[in-house]
Amino acid sequence: MSSPKLKVAIAGLGRMGSRHALHFHTMTPRAELIAVSSPDAKELAWATRNLEGVRTYLDYDQMLREEKELQAVVIASATVVHAEQAIKAIKRGLHVLCEKPLSTNPEVTVVTAYRAAKTTYSKQKVICGFSRRFDASYRDAHQKMRSGLIGRPAVFRSQTCDKLDPSGFFVQYAQFSGGIFVDCSIHDIDLALWFFGEDSIVKSVSAIGITAVSPELRKHNDRDNALGIVEFYGGKIAQLYCSRMMAAGQEDSTEITGTEGKLAVNTQPMSNLVNIYESSGIRREIPPHYYGRFREAFITEANEFTACCLDDTEPPFRLEGAVAAVKIGCALQESLITGKKIEFDEIGRRVDSGAENETALLTARL
Amino acid sequence: MSSPKLKVAIAGLGRMGSRHALHFHTMTPRAELIAVSSPDAKELAWATRNLEGVRTYLDYDQMLREEKELQAVVIASATVVHAEQAIKAIKRGLHVLCEKPLSTNPEVTVVTAYRAAKTTYSKQKVICGFSRRFDASYRDAHQKMRSGLIGRPAVFRSQTCDKLDPSGFFVQYAQFSGGIFVDCSIHDIDLALWFFGEDSIVKSVSAIGITAVSPELRKHNDRDNALGIVEFYGGKIAQLYCSRMMAAGQEDSTEITGTEGKLAVNTQPMSNLVNIYESSGIRREIPPHYYGRFREAFITEANEFTACCLDDTEPPFRLEGAVAAVKIGCALQESLITGKKIEFDEIGRRVDSGAENETALLTARL
Amino acid sequence: MSSPKLKVAIAGLGRMGSRHALHFHTMTPRAELIAVSSPDAKELAWATRNLEGVRTYLDYDQMLREEKELQAVVIASATVVHAEQAIKAIKRGLHVLCEKPLSTNPEVTVVTAYRAAKTTYSKQKVICGFSRRFDASYRDAHQKMRSGLIGRPAVFRSQTCDKLDPSGFFVQYAQFSGGIFVDCSIHDIDLALWFFGEDSIVKSVSAIGITAVSPELRKHNDRDNALGIVEFYGGKIAQLYCSRMMAAGQEDSTEITGTEGKLAVNTQPMSNLVNIYESSGIRREIPPHYYGRFREAFITEANEFTACCLDDTEPPFRLEGAVAAVKIGCALQESLITGKKIEFDEIGRRVDSGAENETALLTARL
Amino acid sequence: MSSPKLKVAIAGLGRMGSRHALHFHTMTPRAELIAVSSPDAKELAWATRNLEGVRTYLDYDQMLREEKELQAVVIASATVVHAEQAIKAIKRGLHVLCEKPLSTNPEVTVVTAYRAAKTTYSKQKVICGFSRRFDASYRDAHQKMRSGLIGRPAVFRSQTCDKLDPSGFFVQYAQFSGGIFVDCSIHDIDLALWFFGEDSIVKSVSAIGITAVSPELRKHNDRDNALGIVEFYGGKIAQLYCSRMMAAGQEDSTEITGTEGKLAVNTQPMSNLVNIYESSGIRREIPPHYYGRFREAFITEANEFTACCLDDTEPPFRLEGAVAAVKIGCALQESLITGKKIEFDEIGRRVDSGAENETALLTARL
Repeated sequence: MSSPKLKVAIAGLGRMGSRHALHFHTMTPRAELIAVSSPDAKELAWATRNLEGVRTYLDYDQMLREEKELQAVVIASATVVHAEQAIKAIKRGLHVLCEKPLSTNPEVTVVTAYRAAKTTYSKQKVICGFSRRFDASYRDAHQKMRSGLIGRPAVFRSQTCDKLDPSGFFVQYAQFSGGIFVDCSIHDIDLALWFFGEDSIVKSVSAIGITAVSPELRKHNDRDNALGIVEFYGGKIAQLYCSRMMAAGQEDSTEITGTEGKLAVNTQPMSNLVNIYESSGIRREIPPHYYGRFREAFITEANEFTACCLDDTEPPFRLEGAVAAVKIGCALQESLITGKKIEFDEIGRRVDSGAENETALLTARL
Repeated sequence: MSSPKLKVAIAGLGRMGSRHALHFHTMTPRAELIAVSSPDAKELAWATRNLEGVRTYLDYDQMLREEKELQAVVIASATVVHAEQAIKAIKRGLHVLCEKPLSTNPEVTVVTAYRAAKTTYSKQKVICGFSRRFDASYRDAHQKMRSGLIGRPAVFRSQTCDKLDPSGFFVQYAQFSGGIFVDCSIHDIDLALWFFGEDSIVKSVSAIGITAVSPELRKHNDRDNALGIVEFYGGKIAQLYCSRMMAAGQEDSTEITGTEGKLAVNTQPMSNLVNIYESSGIRREIPPHYYGRFREAFITEANEFTACCLDDTEPPFRLEGAVAAVKIGCALQESLITGKKIEFDEIGRRVDSGAENETALLTARL
Repeated sequence: MSSPKLKVAIAGLGRMGSRHALHFHTMTPRAELIAVSSPDAKELAWATRNLEGVRTYLDYDQMLREEKELQAVVIASATVVHAEQAIKAIKRGLHVLCEKPLSTNPEVTVVTAYRAAKTTYSKQKVICGFSRRFDASYRDAHQKMRSGLIGRPAVFRSQTCDKLDPSGFFVQYAQFSGGIFVDCSIHDIDLALWFFGEDSIVKSVSAIGITAVSPELRKHNDRDNALGIVEFYGGKIAQLYCSRMMAAGQEDSTEITGTEGKLAVNTQPMSNLVNIYESSGIRREIPPHYYGRFREAFITEANEFTACCLDDTEPPFRLEGAVAAVKIGCALQESLITGKKIEFDEIGRRVDSGAENETALLTARL
Repeated sequence: MSSPKLKVAIAGLGRMGSRHALHFHTMTPRAELIAVSSPDAKELAWATRNLEGVRTYLDYDQMLREEKELQAVVIASATVVHAEQAIKAIKRGLHVLCEKPLSTNPEVTVVTAYRAAKTTYSKQKVICGFSRRFDASYRDAHQKMRSGLIGRPAVFRSQTCDKLDPSGFFVQYAQFSGGIFVDCSIHDIDLALWFFGEDSIVKSVSAIGITAVSPELRKHNDRDNALGIVEFYGGKIAQLYCSRMMAAGQEDSTEITGTEGKLAVNTQPMSNLVNIYESSGIRREIPPHYYGRFREAFITEANEFTACCLDDTEPPFRLEGAVAAVKIGCALQESLITGKKIEFDEIGRRVDSGAENETALLTARL
């Protein structure tokens, strides 16, 4: 007799959804993928071919209704429906692993729903899929920081930089992504909160940006390269860079400088351990895409999420952090467009008038 | 209804055996680990605790007799019984994945047994577990070489260097390991054959060595550091280093130099993508043990072996290469002890008289 | 008969002045160091011991008066007197190599003096000692950028980060340094102008900072770690980091990202080509101080300055760039203290009222 | 009044001779280059253009006769005349810096001449120009080893590998170079003696090689790639690789493994601190030639040689080591051609009969 497995469904079978599906189907021994949903018939056809024994649904709500034995949902659909789908699953008492960002709007309602549901479903787990939290290198760096290796962390630098995609994909994508700071830097912001402490309170954000290769992004109030600086109360500062223009591949690196040392993650990116010596010099390749860099982390995420649901243990991080990350990401995106510095008081409320600011944002859009 | 899985048993639950067991149990979706054997009751107790639903045997032969549904065996027992256990499984018609080296004796009888069995079991797969053949970096390097990136490969350098183990483990181990060239360099020799071509014929070997940290190794005719040079017919040469004395961790690196370029694998070893900046400089850690470096390769090995058995496809490499590797490894070990260069003719026969040589070896032992 | 040599004097014999003196005395074959001045008798005693045949002066003006044959002056005195001493030498018709920064005040008068003097001394050379312009790695990167290797440069990241000096030196020094952005980042700003084009017009600057290890810096309106972002007209952005807190040594690195590639300078710092393998991993050391990183560049600077004076050739870069760098550095320093973003119009005038701003700065100081 | 300078002449103005000339002419403040000799009129014409005030001679002997004030000679002529020219200068009482190798013949007579001359010229300095002894990285590694950082050094690996030169230069050059082990590996052998101790006694050498790109080398009994292993008495072993076939540039690296750690020099070669990120990955360039790697070391050599002559201090290493290096290099070259292992007794005499061996060598040549 074998142990019971966690019965899991995936919502969304796009780029990341299909990967999550495969991870839960074959690389997560304690989970059983029982259903997937996607509004795209082609994606469901892929599922039929590749996910043996898994039921398919065109409609997410129908899946929730009909899969009576379902215990957990992984939400990997379009960013704009993350919050809505997560809330529906939460209300049904399911465990939820929601892809980042939780929302493209700083008024994140998922936490409220989760708190409400907790009174009924005391063992329910809801986490946001910040894949880097499961990456072996980031974990090693974090553990070293906690052990005191760099003294008190004070300065954080991080970048999420995608390989140039000349197909125009990113322009399409920008329509619904929430903008480059919400889509890309959300990872870096989450890392800043992780390394500086989940309870860090943002004090100010400022951002600037350009459209060096995709001027069409401006019509969606987005940029292809942007820089941000973030102050936290308590003497901590962060520097962010996000880009859609890297030539060599995905370049996601992070540095945490403390009073006694520094930890650097992936400041020398590489695909593997091969170096190529040729007449032009010595060369190494780097992963072309996010998944190439973080595949192992996604598999760890699937397994650890499964374990904490089955064993009723604490998830590796709390949902509140994901909300704070969305708030900072949205503020950076706003600063990027309006050119204004945005400030917060010590209990996290914006210091400037929201109204004024909205006007500035609207003007910028015109 | 799910696809049938390959029913697998593991022989030996030592350092590598227990890892193979876990890989087949949880990381190999198309395999089902049904039984394990070990002469060590403690190891079986570990299995009972960690391998849910898997039957345990103190006796390998009994396992082969009683497990009627068994389809494949992974042999990870002590090196000295590799050949014997492999032959028994081959004769029963099972697929076999045998840990390296196939044997500590150049007269390798496994191939003969396999060829004989093939007349009865035409779909039987027997491979030697050269884990580096499944490593992503080595595969990338090999693919690049085959694509012509470095011209014609001509000079090969490789090393297998273990972290210093002050416990005396390696002295104990040397009694049955076949010696450092057979135990460690067998990987490098296999790689040389892979990169130079499986049909490369060895022309000569010479070796020297020392006992820098473990003089007790001399009583087992072994050394803790050894250097070898190997000539192949057709203008190809190789340089080998094996050691039990590394301070920083496992250092296994390889370089293949061709007429137009060079490929280097792991000449800058690292555990992960973290760099530590501290008052003494910039530091990175490296894997302490072989498994830390090659864990992913072992999992790939398990999955690919399973797939080729289930689908009756060609295994990634032939058993004959493993025999050639043992022959070269044994010759290097002999040269290390006798101080003599050993030469082979173009059809692979030793040029020197075996008798003479045996005398030299015996004398060296005294 | 040998060619005439350029007769050179050095003003200031502190950390950099004494090095300049040695470079001109022994490593610059076409120059002859004839005199040095310093208000510090101990420094002059050092000169007497180490600079054979060189005359010493306690008073800079006296040196200018008495050294009739003097052709060129290197100004390496305290930052606050850079401009004044440079102007005196310019008025006497001497060639001038002035250490960075030209001034700690954005109203840089050196250029005016130089332009006036040019009508009399048409062959006079006046340059600011931006040592990185003479560094082989930066030059290689710049040449590669100019050759088109990275397309159009668009995003610049650079940092000047000093090793932690627990002696309190940096607090003392802050009193006269102009602040961390003027003292350290001036190099990075100059590089940004070099890589983006000398005529780049700054559009805005924003900065934030902390005192993580030296709270006493606040009394001099300074910080020990600061981050800045700078916009230039024409779709170019820069990210700066300056620090006095590095554990491992001097960490000055730069990245220039273009539409088709990126060039990185010193993102993997190292003292030399040695790697140390020990039980804690693999380690390399890095230069503890600025001079350890840029010694060769200073020697090249001395030789090229000498050559352009003797041969009446164009200096490698114009004085105007040094003024633009001071202006941006002062604006960043102001933003660091006031927390305000500072904006400039397309002809380089500040958009905000100077008066308002001065008030903010004064308030911040109190 | 300035200190007297060392009056220096250079013999030979080829690739290295012309560089030595420039170093002594402009980069060695305490030396004065007064004369150069070369049998090649074109080289002398170069000297007239580039070495202002330096006298030129077609005949070395004439230079020695006529330059009455000469104090030191740098011998950078063809390898075959190194010994002869050095002995003439020694007999005249001059200080001598002789390029490596001292000779292409193990019967090195320079030391005998030097010892004889010492009775007359007690302050005479004669050293062999092993440039790596003056390299900052090698010196740092050696100092770290001496400080005990790696315990007792036991295994040495080093390579001298030239960039492929398709012009056929190396074939021409092989005629007089003494062979690849004498020409290239002499550096590595000298380093082995430096790191293992100058008094290390060689026990055996074995070598193999191929002609992968230049089969014409065989007519000069040479190879384009060769591997050697060397045993020293006292439990020390070395592994050597020399090549004329590198694609990327000059690749000279060294590793010294001790009982407690390892030091690696230049195992990640680079021209400078620039990394290039482009669509094919991340690339760095490496020095194309020996001089690109060791320029600074040559300048240090010139300055330190000058200082030890002027100040009558101990030279950084003794001439006897250069003789030991030639002996090991010649033995490796012989083993490379004959295929025989060559053994030495504990006082350094060859164990095999010279006669037998000579026959083997002659046969191999035919």
